[in-house]
Amino acid sequence: MSEYGITRSGPAFMHDDVNPAVNPILWQDDTLVLLDQRRLPDEVTHVVCRTAAEVEAAIRDMVVRGAPAIGIAAAYGVALAARSWHASGTPDWRDGLAGDIARLRAARPTAVNLMWALDRMSAAIPEGPGDPFPVLAAHARGLHEADLAGNRRMGDFGAALIAPGAGVLTHCNAGALATAGYGTALGVIRSGWRRGVIDAVFATETRPWLQGARLTAFELLADGIDVTLIADGAAAHLMASGRVQWVVTGADRIAANGDTANKIGTYALATLARAHGIRFMVAAPLSTIDRATASGADIPIEHRTADELTHLGGRAVAAPGVHALNPVFDVTPAHLIDALATEKGVVERPDAAAIAALFES
Amino acid sequence: MSEYGITRSGPAFMHDDVNPAVNPILWQDDTLVLLDQRRLPDEVTHVVCRTAAEVEAAIRDMVVRGAPAIGIAAAYGVALAARSWHASGTPDWRDGLAGDIARLRAARPTAVNLMWALDRMSAAIPEGPGDPFPVLAAHARGLHEADLAGNRRMGDFGAALIAPGAGVLTHCNAGALATAGYGTALGVIRSGWRRGVIDAVFATETRPWLQGARLTAFELLADGIDVTLIADGAAAHLMASGRVQWVVTGADRIAANGDTANKIGTYALATLARAHGIRFMVAAPLSTIDRATASGADIPIEHRTADELTHLGGRAVAAPGVHALNPVFDVTPAHLIDALATEKGVVERPDAAAIAALFES
Repeated sequence: MSEYGITRSGPAFMHDDVNPAVNPILWQDDTLVLLDQRRLPDEVTHVVCRTAAEVEAAIRDMVVRGAPAIGIAAAYGVALAARSWHASGTPDWRDGLAGDIARLRAARPTAVNLMWALDRMSAAIPEGPGDPFPVLAAHARGLHEADLAGNRRMGDFGAALIAPGAGVLTHCNAGALATAGYGTALGVIRSGWRRGVIDAVFATETRPWLQGARLTAFELLADGIDVTLIADGAAAHLMASGRVQWVVTGADRIAANGDTANKIGTYALATLARAHGIRFMVAAPLSTIDRATASGADIPIEHRTADELTHLGGRAVAAPGVHALNPVFDVTPAHLIDALATEKGVVERPDAAAIAALFES
Repeated sequence: MSEYGITRSGPAFMHDDVNPAVNPILWQDDTLVLLDQRRLPDEVTHVVCRTAAEVEAAIRDMVVRGAPAIGIAAAYGVALAARSWHASGTPDWRDGLAGDIARLRAARPTAVNLMWALDRMSAAIPEGPGDPFPVLAAHARGLHEADLAGNRRMGDFGAALIAPGAGVLTHCNAGALATAGYGTALGVIRSGWRRGVIDAVFATETRPWLQGARLTAFELLADGIDVTLIADGAAAHLMASGRVQWVVTGADRIAANGDTANKIGTYALATLARAHGIRFMVAAPLSTIDRATASGADIPIEHRTADELTHLGGRAVAAPGVHALNPVFDVTPAHLIDALATEKGVVERPDAAAIAALFES
């Protein structure tokens, strides 16, 4: 991975109405350019990926994060892998490509959009001896464009549930930065803010990676949406104050029965919302629904290293020698979810039947 | 306030069985020496207070924190104030002393032990023209000793509720560092660990001030008690895993009906514990019970500055310009509290009648 300041030379794929400051993925000069989310909000820098290995590292190291964005980045990674392998002239280039796809698949275990995008890309590998790159690059771009369009529909569907004067609490960053550029949970909030139904947006800081403080605050401020940060532990107190009517989050994987894996802390917020009579919405594209996973108990939960908790910006913040448990996702059972907003509409009280119906309509 | 490395010359009041590394308050050579908790665990340094103004600043700036420890520090502050005013020779020295007591009272608004200790000290000011310092210093020392002895009793009472093999989750630091040297919630955990009934201790990191990561981890490790740190947002996930049987916290003020103000996030943990069938214990001395406050709605909640959330160690961690809401306490309603452990015994399901009975027995 090399890094450079972004340039605008060459034909770039980025929708005109995506705020460039919060656009996580740029496909430019047949190269993948990722906004380095580890450095936000301090620095707006980009990481250039020209090989699948570079894309894999960018996903693993969280240069790009957020389930839909990971999927899109990986899709472009397949196109880059195909270009390299085909150019190598080796007769078994398809096996090499399959190996790269397997490595991309293993980069993060919980987000299912990664698996979904790689399945789509695998199915799109053209037959025959010709260069597969143009077809695959176009296919990845199609997924990229579809994600953005889907987010806008999802945002409007979700916002339609919100009564005027609402306070909305969100967690982590399910925003432009986590998707093609509009957001899932923050797409609902963007749509609701533009409609004038949302009066106040609250964001948890979301330890350990501080996606809320760093990313959600950054991208909402960039769009002129007022946002107030709270400590993760302050959510229940805020709910009891009556200032929140909806909690809206994204998802990393939704099981066939509606159980939803998302950033650690989501399950706590859903439980607390129910205890306070506050509604809880998950906003996610159909690509986040894993119909092959029956329930949340079957979703693998990624644990990351203790130093994400014990250190911050390279500086120790905890007592030396303490153990830490760092699960970075949790599972919210479907019965705590009042609404699932997707690009195909809203499912209230999602369950296995309602989710199956989404795929049939 | 000046700072120095601690010395052991001169007669010091510190119980032999308090681990010096985690002793927050030392009365030495008629001077108050406070462990600087802002710098833990990086540095073990002390702040010397020779005047009431220095004590007031130390409380406000969180050199000393934790409701019982604040009360003890303030008590010594009254003795120091009396010495200064009496030595000044001014005829209205009692008015000056009353003014210093009023300033100490205003240093932190939520913890009621501060008010309780100042009331006790005010009542102990001797009549007559003689130097009030020896009497007041002895009285403060009495409060100091009584807190330690009370903590030990409370710890044993609370630990007796815990069945063998328990996992215990605690929040913030209600430990040696927050008291005279044994702890309220961590006193229960110390007693339970020594009895062998506690198998695992989990500590939330407790944003924004990271008392769990910095202080609870530090003092439990110093005592050889194994502790595992989690992000605040991971508590519900941990509870769902079945590894926690009790949540044990301290308190900053308990209303007459049992509603309990404590570190922000406590109310969330109590709500989550109830949702998971996990028992929730508050450990606090009677001096934390404010019989003049009818219910939690009447407890003032301190809000601290936004930079405690937006910055860490002087470094910005949030997007510049974001608003932040930083309530540092919340209120847990009595109906979520399964047990209140005090130095006079345990009250199960505390309510107004049971709490009133504590003061009559």
